[in-house]
Amino acid sequence: MTPPSHLAYVPFISVENMMRLIHSIGIETMLRELADAIEHDFTRWPLFDKTPRVGSHSEVGVIELMPTSDGDLYGFKYVNGHPSNTKQGLQTVTAFGLLAQVSSGYPVLLSEMTVLTALRTAATSAMAARHLAPKGAKVMAVIGNGAQSEFQALAFKAVVGIEEVRLYDIDAAATAKCARNLAGSGLKVTRCQSSQEAMEGAQIVTTCTADKQYATILTDNMIGDGIHINAIGGDCPGKTELHRDILLRSDIFVEYPPQTRIEGEIQQMPEDYPVTELWQVINGEVQGRKSASQITLFDGVGFAIEDFSALKYVYQRALKTGHFQQLDMIADPDDPRDLFGMLHRAGDAA
Amino acid sequence: MTPPSHLAYVPFISVENMMRLIHSIGIETMLRELADAIEHDFTRWPLFDKTPRVGSHSEVGVIELMPTSDGDLYGFKYVNGHPSNTKQGLQTVTAFGLLAQVSSGYPVLLSEMTVLTALRTAATSAMAARHLAPKGAKVMAVIGNGAQSEFQALAFKAVVGIEEVRLYDIDAAATAKCARNLAGSGLKVTRCQSSQEAMEGAQIVTTCTADKQYATILTDNMIGDGIHINAIGGDCPGKTELHRDILLRSDIFVEYPPQTRIEGEIQQMPEDYPVTELWQVINGEVQGRKSASQITLFDGVGFAIEDFSALKYVYQRALKTGHFQQLDMIADPDDPRDLFGMLHRAGDAA
Repeated sequence: MTPPSHLAYVPFISVENMMRLIHSIGIETMLRELADAIEHDFTRWPLFDKTPRVGSHSEVGVIELMPTSDGDLYGFKYVNGHPSNTKQGLQTVTAFGLLAQVSSGYPVLLSEMTVLTALRTAATSAMAARHLAPKGAKVMAVIGNGAQSEFQALAFKAVVGIEEVRLYDIDAAATAKCARNLAGSGLKVTRCQSSQEAMEGAQIVTTCTADKQYATILTDNMIGDGIHINAIGGDCPGKTELHRDILLRSDIFVEYPPQTRIEGEIQQMPEDYPVTELWQVINGEVQGRKSASQITLFDGVGFAIEDFSALKYVYQRALKTGHFQQLDMIADPDDPRDLFGMLHRAGDAA
Repeated sequence: MTPPSHLAYVPFISVENMMRLIHSIGIETMLRELADAIEHDFTRWPLFDKTPRVGSHSEVGVIELMPTSDGDLYGFKYVNGHPSNTKQGLQTVTAFGLLAQVSSGYPVLLSEMTVLTALRTAATSAMAARHLAPKGAKVMAVIGNGAQSEFQALAFKAVVGIEEVRLYDIDAAATAKCARNLAGSGLKVTRCQSSQEAMEGAQIVTTCTADKQYATILTDNMIGDGIHINAIGGDCPGKTELHRDILLRSDIFVEYPPQTRIEGEIQQMPEDYPVTELWQVINGEVQGRKSASQITLFDGVGFAIEDFSALKYVYQRALKTGHFQQLDMIADPDDPRDLFGMLHRAGDAA
């Protein structure tokens, strides 16, 4: 067969190349650059195509497609959520994503996104905290020490200036794993026996637990004035982490209200419960933190624009560093109307 | 780095492997088997998740995601439609698709679908005609001789028993290309100077033109009693091929009414205009062709279930024949909660 033309090739970032790319940049540098890239796209929020994710639900989990476009590039992410996967040694969440040219519809990048989503989720949290957390915050409690916890810790170190993380998980092995992974990171790591203990002296609390159920990871008495809550784990219908009383005392910031009202902590509240869209804070349209005593809550569920920003970032970086391979994914006949001729001649040549 | 585990790999069928797979099976055999596979899935139509495609529209085209699931497997197709692409030497339509396990959310196949979509579209048309065309039809007019035309001709030969195709396109070069590609196929190929001439003696007419506009490829006077019309080219809002009077004289069969009313020929008709769902004919619930004089119209726009059937078919065939490569697309840490540890250790090992 004649080799495919260059139009037929789509750059692909495998898991291995993603890990190489991250280490070539440095994980903290990459978290900082991702936070900046996401923040930049939040300032141009109104020009993005926005639609709630398209989910296919089953009894054991969900498979979702999250598309968006800025008019120049189109991106989507495929992501699953299967809480019982870990019992079979599988990931709860796996993901991959694609970027394409809006002008031609041709894909320009296919990428693993299991690792990349972990980074963009942490970068988004830290970027939100840069606008919402009390100034000079140095101590963060991390409740839930699963797959996302170390990424959160490092992002808050790199972006917000956190110096100590206080870890708690109902599973002590998860806390031990997280502490082990963060050894040598430059963070002071404190293992705690309860959520209460983890909250001692913390200005920020990140909740990133994984149970698919209404849980109460934090109760009202645990949240003092001035705290910033970064609630990440409540991210699908029926899954929340915070007691309703905490929501009533907090000013709540969200990515995209139509999605967060279904998936976030605010699914506990009435449909018209007041929330602020984070992009308006970043844009300067609305004030974020107004006082030292205010309780701020980022009710993060993950939105398509963050994936778009992350894909665009790794696309630019991978093209420079060569951390990709070429996939023969697009049929490209010499004459576009002659797809059959291309197929036919391939048979003759075989 | 340690090599990824087998869970990390997703079989990928490139364009080259797709072409090899088709030739190893034989194109007519594959069109017949695809028609059977699609027909089989149409008999279990009610158990599929059905949703209209999710489109991102721009001034020059559209990018769409078409998901579906039968409860066991989940599939989606990415497809673009950019009519002006051909001016830049690009395909109007490119596509790729994915299958995943519903139980785990893990992808099991990534495949090119530009070539595969051409085959499944032709196989679906021929499968519909098997139920709707007059018995013993031997002659088919093909109006529009672009990328889909040869696939339609061969599918109707393989599945319906067509012996002669009568070709017409406003661009004589397209007709010449189609005739050249079909030489040696065993079909009698007649090049015509007009749609009228192409219709002479035809029991079936396939319209597969590509203009993104309301066009009138066929007018009422050209359609005699007993004809089966296979209308493929009108497949997006604002794009139709048939004069409204033809629709009024025909019994109309569609894939999925909510989608066809937006994209198909029947976008010209009132929202409640009566149509028959093809799957009910195939199931035996509703009679297809009722008399020799009836005009039947398959208003085909392409539906996600056909892509699902095609992906499942090539998945089974590719696994047997080895026409695929393994992509390192899914991050698979030894401990699913320890994604960070996997990334961290990859850095140490690099």
